[in-house]
Amino acid sequence: MMNDAVPYGAIEAGGTKWVCAVGTGPDDIRALQRFPTTTPEETLRSCIEFFQRQGELQAIGIGSFGPVDLNHNSPTYGFITSTPKVGWRNADVVGAVKSALDLPVALDTDVNAALLGEVKWGAAQGLTDAIYLTVGTGFGGGAMVNGQLAHGLLHPEFGHMFVPRDPSDTFGGACSFHGDCLEGLVSGPAIEARWKAPGESLPPDHPAWRLEAGYLAYALVNMTCLLSPQRIIVGGGVGSNPALLTLVRERFQSILNGYLQADALLGGIEEYIVSPGLEGRSGILGAIALAQAEFGSVDK
Amino acid sequence: MMNDAVPYGAIEAGGTKWVCAVGTGPDDIRALQRFPTTTPEETLRSCIEFFQRQGELQAIGIGSFGPVDLNHNSPTYGFITSTPKVGWRNADVVGAVKSALDLPVALDTDVNAALLGEVKWGAAQGLTDAIYLTVGTGFGGGAMVNGQLAHGLLHPEFGHMFVPRDPSDTFGGACSFHGDCLEGLVSGPAIEARWKAPGESLPPDHPAWRLEAGYLAYALVNMTCLLSPQRIIVGGGVGSNPALLTLVRERFQSILNGYLQADALLGGIEEYIVSPGLEGRSGILGAIALAQAEFGSVDK
Repeated sequence: MMNDAVPYGAIEAGGTKWVCAVGTGPDDIRALQRFPTTTPEETLRSCIEFFQRQGELQAIGIGSFGPVDLNHNSPTYGFITSTPKVGWRNADVVGAVKSALDLPVALDTDVNAALLGEVKWGAAQGLTDAIYLTVGTGFGGGAMVNGQLAHGLLHPEFGHMFVPRDPSDTFGGACSFHGDCLEGLVSGPAIEARWKAPGESLPPDHPAWRLEAGYLAYALVNMTCLLSPQRIIVGGGVGSNPALLTLVRERFQSILNGYLQADALLGGIEEYIVSPGLEGRSGILGAIALAQAEFGSVDK
Repeated sequence: MMNDAVPYGAIEAGGTKWVCAVGTGPDDIRALQRFPTTTPEETLRSCIEFFQRQGELQAIGIGSFGPVDLNHNSPTYGFITSTPKVGWRNADVVGAVKSALDLPVALDTDVNAALLGEVKWGAAQGLTDAIYLTVGTGFGGGAMVNGQLAHGLLHPEFGHMFVPRDPSDTFGGACSFHGDCLEGLVSGPAIEARWKAPGESLPPDHPAWRLEAGYLAYALVNMTCLLSPQRIIVGGGVGSNPALLTLVRERFQSILNGYLQADALLGGIEEYIVSPGLEGRSGILGAIALAQAEFGSVDK
């Protein structure tokens, strides 16, 4: 699609890679580059140099791994805070980008950004209450309530909720803070530590998947009970595994046991628990959507 | 406080009693009456006759037990839906009140109403993101996110989330839909079924309270992870039990283990997990606040 509008810069800041892009939406990505996440200095420098090679930009949107300080009144606004990721604790992401590029910068969590992308262009279009999850190296979740992204005191940290343990599962959990919180039970590293093999190597009939689906189903029940979303988008490795998502839907319905009478939770379950609509681009497109939402000029 | 404004009617519709009141706020309750919850016909008739004995009213606000249909586009808007409460399934509460009194009626869940009351006049004044819980006959929760009450697909049903079981607790749970969901583990009937004695009769050093605090702490951790509220108000029997609330705060901090770096969750925990500010009147004042928010004239 031809588009001569001044584009946005977008950063999907992840724990293993950063994606930087320039564009205005799904049909107008004018440049895109990936960098491995190394030190904050090196990663931010690569990212800044990428944008310095581009033309004029309206603003930068960043969807970042976290925890990240989103409180504009805080002295550490825009910093990554208590992450266990080596070297990144107290890294000033927004400050570095803003001062180097002299552009307005919009920031949110990676998952809130991805959710905004999905609401604008993907699997949650037209919805006011939705959740975006990513299940992979960790477990993250973003929430929209009444059409606005949820932040509250800090920002949601879905991965650190707790669900009932499966009696057959004696694994102690992989979270360095909480042991067997949700992330400690279902993330990629948790699967690998429990079964002594990476998830990708486990066949579809391996008991790992039934266990994984059970924990995820409890987590999605808890989300439904606390946030009552109109749809839950499951991204990351799980969302791209249709057989696993089918198992999650079945277990979810079996746990809820018909208590909540809504079509979406009964016959409509396949449209309630869904894969992302933006196929791996939710995060980077969401970062564009963030910049657009906060700084977009009226002609956009 | 003298006030000659035309008042609101308010209904706190509970599973064991209904409270009806007329007024404009905490310092201006002009009439108040309680009715036991019997059949829908009888309870609604008592309530309607109470309002018919009052003078002019601007509107009626109702905070109701549920599940309740809050979707204005639904043919069963204003009905109580899949409640296990005998006789109340598919009771048309809003329709009955509206047609008998010919007044505008605002409806929300009992807990959302109570939360709105606490935000307006009680323990959550000035906050944009807060949770109100009631722990008693059941377990209910209402949530405000970015200054707006959360509804989503239906409305939150906090009591039916799941938390990890305490290995020492072999009780099967008291929820007729889910067995050992949160409500099935911590409600008054659950305590009584587990210990063969009502909670009121158990001394403060009874192991029931340590168990109760543990489950509640997990539940509050899940709420913090999913909604990131600025404050959690605990109403009902638990909120009025300061020793239990102290136990809950301790276990909450021990479970979170310092992962979320916010003063409110660390040194400020006594201001994060709190009792209601409106001392048993959150619900009925919240129903006034509901009517005021939806139908209040500009001079209010």
